[in-house]
Amino acid sequence: MDHDLDLHADGPELTAALVDIASVSGEEGPLADAIERALHRLPHLQVTRHGNTLVARTDLGGAGRGKRERVLLAGHIDTVPHAANFPSEWGSRRRRLSGVGTSDMKSGVAVQLRLAAALNEPNRDVTYVFYECEEVDTARNGLYLLSRNAPETLQADFAVLLEPSGGAVEGGCQGTLRAAITASGARAHTARSWMGKNAIHEAAAILNVLSSWTPRKPVVDGLEYHEGLNAVAISGGVAGNVVPDECVVTVNYRFAPDRSEQEAQAYIRDLFAAWPVDILDSAPAARPGLTSGPAADFVAAVGGEPRAKLGWTDVARFAELGIPAVNYGPGISEIAHTPGEYVEAAKIVAAEQALTRWLTA
Amino acid sequence: MDHDLDLHADGPELTAALVDIASVSGEEGPLADAIERALHRLPHLQVTRHGNTLVARTDLGGAGRGKRERVLLAGHIDTVPHAANFPSEWGSRRRRLSGVGTSDMKSGVAVQLRLAAALNEPNRDVTYVFYECEEVDTARNGLYLLSRNAPETLQADFAVLLEPSGGAVEGGCQGTLRAAITASGARAHTARSWMGKNAIHEAAAILNVLSSWTPRKPVVDGLEYHEGLNAVAISGGVAGNVVPDECVVTVNYRFAPDRSEQEAQAYIRDLFAAWPVDILDSAPAARPGLTSGPAADFVAAVGGEPRAKLGWTDVARFAELGIPAVNYGPGISEIAHTPGEYVEAAKIVAAEQALTRWLTA
Repeated sequence: MDHDLDLHADGPELTAALVDIASVSGEEGPLADAIERALHRLPHLQVTRHGNTLVARTDLGGAGRGKRERVLLAGHIDTVPHAANFPSEWGSRRRRLSGVGTSDMKSGVAVQLRLAAALNEPNRDVTYVFYECEEVDTARNGLYLLSRNAPETLQADFAVLLEPSGGAVEGGCQGTLRAAITASGARAHTARSWMGKNAIHEAAAILNVLSSWTPRKPVVDGLEYHEGLNAVAISGGVAGNVVPDECVVTVNYRFAPDRSEQEAQAYIRDLFAAWPVDILDSAPAARPGLTSGPAADFVAAVGGEPRAKLGWTDVARFAELGIPAVNYGPGISEIAHTPGEYVEAAKIVAAEQALTRWLTA
Repeated sequence: MDHDLDLHADGPELTAALVDIASVSGEEGPLADAIERALHRLPHLQVTRHGNTLVARTDLGGAGRGKRERVLLAGHIDTVPHAANFPSEWGSRRRRLSGVGTSDMKSGVAVQLRLAAALNEPNRDVTYVFYECEEVDTARNGLYLLSRNAPETLQADFAVLLEPSGGAVEGGCQGTLRAAITASGARAHTARSWMGKNAIHEAAAILNVLSSWTPRKPVVDGLEYHEGLNAVAISGGVAGNVVPDECVVTVNYRFAPDRSEQEAQAYIRDLFAAWPVDILDSAPAARPGLTSGPAADFVAAVGGEPRAKLGWTDVARFAELGIPAVNYGPGISEIAHTPGEYVEAAKIVAAEQALTRWLTA
């Protein structure tokens, strides 16, 4: 079935239309097709497609007309799997739209599309990116793939990810790493357990480190972060009558952007120096950098009090490319991925107005 | 292939012959057939078969000749799976026989068969039980099945299990129970972990109870036991970015025979009173009872210093039937179930001599 998107419908209506084209990660084809057809009807945009990821660019600077500032607005078009929350449903007074992806983040995609349609002569060149597979492994993430295969499409002076941020500017993001910490022992039959050494009992000391850990809350570029260190898995045991010789605790460390990946890994190795530590994966933090340049202009234009982004987002990918980036979107991050996910219509309209102000003032 | 057993070969040779008829649990048919044929050649025995379990009884008391004391000698004929230790192999001076089941417990079965063949007029009536599936679930255990389906076959005043005991009398056995203890929390995204409560961190308190636990070593009927309390499994974790809401620690409590099953369960519930405790399974201990009656006569006849049995054995099944029982066999329990399992030839001969003394004096 082909879907046609009406970019002249208001933001909330367009959000509902986007939600009602199912696009669980890996199945974004029909929605990407619909967005592509809508973008092709806009003569001021140059549209390219990369898998189910679409890039649409203004080129007002053009050849011989001098270099202008370029900003990038990005949003992922996939959602987590449905949880009896598809298609969308309006509340009785049409203030809230419920359904999978309403907050995370088809309301943001609707704002992108509305701006793409309305602003044929923005005050800066704009690149709109609509990308696939954000909710799954990095290896399939459309933004990651662009950064590896067509990095020139992402070239910009500043980027806005329309991830749910409750209408506030969220700067930077915390890094994340996972590590496996192993307590060892010696097997024995439990009938003569004193012949062995119980690795699960040894792991108590690892858990005690976690229980007594106090989070850092550093202020970086004016925003306060809040670290976290949690066991996310524990496993051990051989059989019901065997003293186990190994117990593995997997921890997730969320670290503020005043620490590099290397510093964060060293910190964890040091904290658990009594045990072997295996770093399983790691992604860097991104500093907010909102105090100068195009990021400062953006904050001034959209207003409100910026806050620190605690989760890891694709903002960090832009940081790796040397492009300052923020999260700014109408959705609510706290209810993302829950069956009761919804978005407030007024937030969608407000975000569109603020971004229009920024791109036309 | 049919196997013929020569019950006139000496105990070590007969052990080798038994080991060389493979009988991993569930595959005891050929060995049961061979034992059945050998027993049928002994006119002083009444032989019945129950699955792959054989029962052979003397009936010297007979009708009208008055009631005599009856003793029971039992041994399982199955082994754990082979571990490149089949068939058997003699050491260079024929002092040690290596191979699966040499200690646990075909050397004991060889002694049973030698006694069955040699003692056509023992001083007590004797029931010989050769049973299947001891190394696997209780539901398939031949002795358990007899106790449920034909308990009259097990009627006796005293029982000897020829389990490996290094030639010593091991009295009673410790009980065993497993319990799941659950620490609870509340899920949250690890980027905002303070919104939740980490159940794995909570489980530290459970492990601390285990680490600081001091085993009881009560003396029961003159024998010293040694309890054990061990985590045998731990599991928790939802996903790499989720604060987990549940962590389950499975513990195995080995308790001395001065505690009933009910007392042992109550003790564990009390020790972990701060958490929900789910008793997964439980088997009672058995008091040694070596200080009087036929058990005391047995100890006096075979000599040596009795010691406490710490593991759980089928002795407890006899205790449930009200029959005093001990472990007494030529194998070495510490190397049972290991690839290097062996038995010493001299121990086989010594066990046969001691039991002959007891049954003929």
